[in-house]
Amino acid sequence: MQRRDFLQRASALAALPLIGPAGSFATRLRGSAPLHVNGDRLNASLTAFNSVGRTPGGINRVAYSDADLAGRAFALDLFRQAGFTPRIDAAGNIFARLPGRDASLPPILIGSHIDSVTDGGNFDGPVGSFGALEVARSLREQNARLAHPVDVVVWQNEEGGTVGSHAAIGKLRAADLDKVARSGFTWRDGIARIGGSVDKLAEAALKSGDIACYLELHIEQGGLLEKAGLQIGVVEGIVGLRWSEVTITGFANHAGATPMDQRQDAVLAAAKFTVAITDAIRAEPGRQVATVGRMVVTPNTTNVIAGQVVLTVDLRELDTTKLERLQQRIEQIAREIGDSTKTTFQFRPLSSSLAALADPRMMAFVEASTKTLGFTHQRMPSGAGHDAQEIAQIAPMGMIFIPSVGGISHSPREFSHADDITRGADVLLNAVIGADAMR
Amino acid sequence: MQRRDFLQRASALAALPLIGPAGSFATRLRGSAPLHVNGDRLNASLTAFNSVGRTPGGINRVAYSDADLAGRAFALDLFRQAGFTPRIDAAGNIFARLPGRDASLPPILIGSHIDSVTDGGNFDGPVGSFGALEVARSLREQNARLAHPVDVVVWQNEEGGTVGSHAAIGKLRAADLDKVARSGFTWRDGIARIGGSVDKLAEAALKSGDIACYLELHIEQGGLLEKAGLQIGVVEGIVGLRWSEVTITGFANHAGATPMDQRQDAVLAAAKFTVAITDAIRAEPGRQVATVGRMVVTPNTTNVIAGQVVLTVDLRELDTTKLERLQQRIEQIAREIGDSTKTTFQFRPLSSSLAALADPRMMAFVEASTKTLGFTHQRMPSGAGHDAQEIAQIAPMGMIFIPSVGGISHSPREFSHADDITRGADVLLNAVIGADAMR
Repeated sequence: MQRRDFLQRASALAALPLIGPAGSFATRLRGSAPLHVNGDRLNASLTAFNSVGRTPGGINRVAYSDADLAGRAFALDLFRQAGFTPRIDAAGNIFARLPGRDASLPPILIGSHIDSVTDGGNFDGPVGSFGALEVARSLREQNARLAHPVDVVVWQNEEGGTVGSHAAIGKLRAADLDKVARSGFTWRDGIARIGGSVDKLAEAALKSGDIACYLELHIEQGGLLEKAGLQIGVVEGIVGLRWSEVTITGFANHAGATPMDQRQDAVLAAAKFTVAITDAIRAEPGRQVATVGRMVVTPNTTNVIAGQVVLTVDLRELDTTKLERLQQRIEQIAREIGDSTKTTFQFRPLSSSLAALADPRMMAFVEASTKTLGFTHQRMPSGAGHDAQEIAQIAPMGMIFIPSVGGISHSPREFSHADDITRGADVLLNAVIGADAMR
Repeated sequence: MQRRDFLQRASALAALPLIGPAGSFATRLRGSAPLHVNGDRLNASLTAFNSVGRTPGGINRVAYSDADLAGRAFALDLFRQAGFTPRIDAAGNIFARLPGRDASLPPILIGSHIDSVTDGGNFDGPVGSFGALEVARSLREQNARLAHPVDVVVWQNEEGGTVGSHAAIGKLRAADLDKVARSGFTWRDGIARIGGSVDKLAEAALKSGDIACYLELHIEQGGLLEKAGLQIGVVEGIVGLRWSEVTITGFANHAGATPMDQRQDAVLAAAKFTVAITDAIRAEPGRQVATVGRMVVTPNTTNVIAGQVVLTVDLRELDTTKLERLQQRIEQIAREIGDSTKTTFQFRPLSSSLAALADPRMMAFVEASTKTLGFTHQRMPSGAGHDAQEIAQIAPMGMIFIPSVGGISHSPREFSHADDITRGADVLLNAVIGADAMR
């Protein structure tokens, strides 16, 4: 879908009156005061969780590690303390249900993950997981029984490639199970360690219609909200991604004896390429990003002009057409720099994903919830991948962002303020109530 | 010394008539035809040597390895076949003497090395070593007995840091002996392996006056001669060198979620720096070179903006004042790019050496020899380091370059034509005869 069409449609839908079944709790709510979660309780659970998998380098709850198992045990306890009976599906995801009034309706699914990257923080994932549990708990405590069941989910191994949510939409292939996670366990062994059952993965697969919608609360992981001084991000979608490995071949030669104009310097070519694609990406409006994060030089010796550099380009953009155009521009820049530096550039696609657009109705529910609560907000893409991008393939998806201090994530310095976390959970709570009107 | 002064002086000296002792062979020669080496024999020895330490990756005669020992055994045999009696000094260097007429005169020293880099070629070192032996052999065969003795030397471990010639000028420190060579042996153990004796290093030390002068034939290792279509390079000196390790500190962050204008990207800063210093070095006339040959990125992950890059800068220039000015310019560029990219640059000096200027008389002898032989030539600096730079500290030094095909060196593709090798040895032969006139 073109970005413009999509934004027009979303805007039109957001303007529609939200009509639910007459007399429903959700409908009654809309004219009155919004509900609130217990923010102190939510933040206390996050504070307690902050010691699980904590190392001198940061939070290390990489999927399937002992620390991840400890984190899951913590989460299961929290579900039980909240009065829920968690179950683990065949893929190892944790689910718990708050029953609805109408047994014929599929659940509204809310949740996130609790595994971390290496040396990460305590907010990427847990905020949305415990926030979702707090939303379900608050609904029940406040006797706000919705028509739909509300399912709370904690996806397994998000950081290793949204493995749990990928399995939940039936897309995990048998061959994938041999992949090795950061913890050193294969996905197969990892799923067994966390109580799943790879032989029954088909039973874990959700089809279109199995859930009413999916909503995920998450930290932004960037600095847009903080910079704009806004409280809530209404996610328009998760950007599409193109990862390329680029091999630059020059010619290794003596750093002292080879005149500057007779070199085929792969490091210089890589440097020119990095500068040029950064300039090109920044030259046009929009929130597209491109990153050269990995660079391996051969022979990597002080007094030898490099014969080869292998680097990666990570390109992301919400609009698929623009993503493709930017990728072509990057490859064109490579050809030009190859010519001017007497080197060759070879591109190998490492990974790519299409943008996962938020459902316009979900954006409208989040936006309405935000407005009811009186919070400031903006629409924005998610530059990071999330489980929501998987679930978007089988159900209407929406995401809620709260500010990350300093835009820092995947770092021990990752932090979000307690008030922002409470605001995010409040928005999720009232968005769920809004979504309950959907049929 | 300023480059201009030095060139003026060299030029004035070269114009002087070369007066030797009346009636000496050398003096007699100058009016007549130049001598010639046996080029076929020289090239045959190089061809035979090409199988020693040959691996699929190239020549691997790294110092102190079994292949280096085999190379030295080959060289010792060659000395004996040529009728010389080689000796090994305490540092492991191989010496052999062609006696002179005047027992009171110190020797004219000629030679080079035979160890190689990893995956190197058969010309860097052996051409000058076997060339020097061929010169001494030719002098004796042609009954051209000089006043000075002629000593032929094969220095050990040139590629690992001119270790043998450094020891020969008495500068090798005890602490250096614990350094580990590419072969895995410490210098201490390596010297023992090649027949030296680290306890007697002082006996190997040459002082000022111990040798009359030093002349070294070597492949250019760059492409200047080939590009200019010239046969002989008269080396003006070995450039000074500044090696810096530069640590660029940014801030690691999420490659998807961090907007382009909120990054502190160490890879981007490294790229801008590499491009900018290359432009600065190329912007002014001269043969200065700067190389970023090593670059290590942290965390070096596709989807993480790099928080740190450690790179090296190898800067070389013959003129010490200019070298220092260029180093300051590079550090200024680093500060500017640090400011504009919100990163910091820290410089750590790794190594530095002053330029070793060729002696103007030696250049004049080489030039006179070249002219007598009718070869085309130019003066030029050596961008690569050589044993000659060590010996220049205790004696007048000169070097002769022959073309490297494609300017390629330290590579299995390193190559020099047999005719060029013969020409180089002929120039060395007649330069030695010229130098014999010195007192």
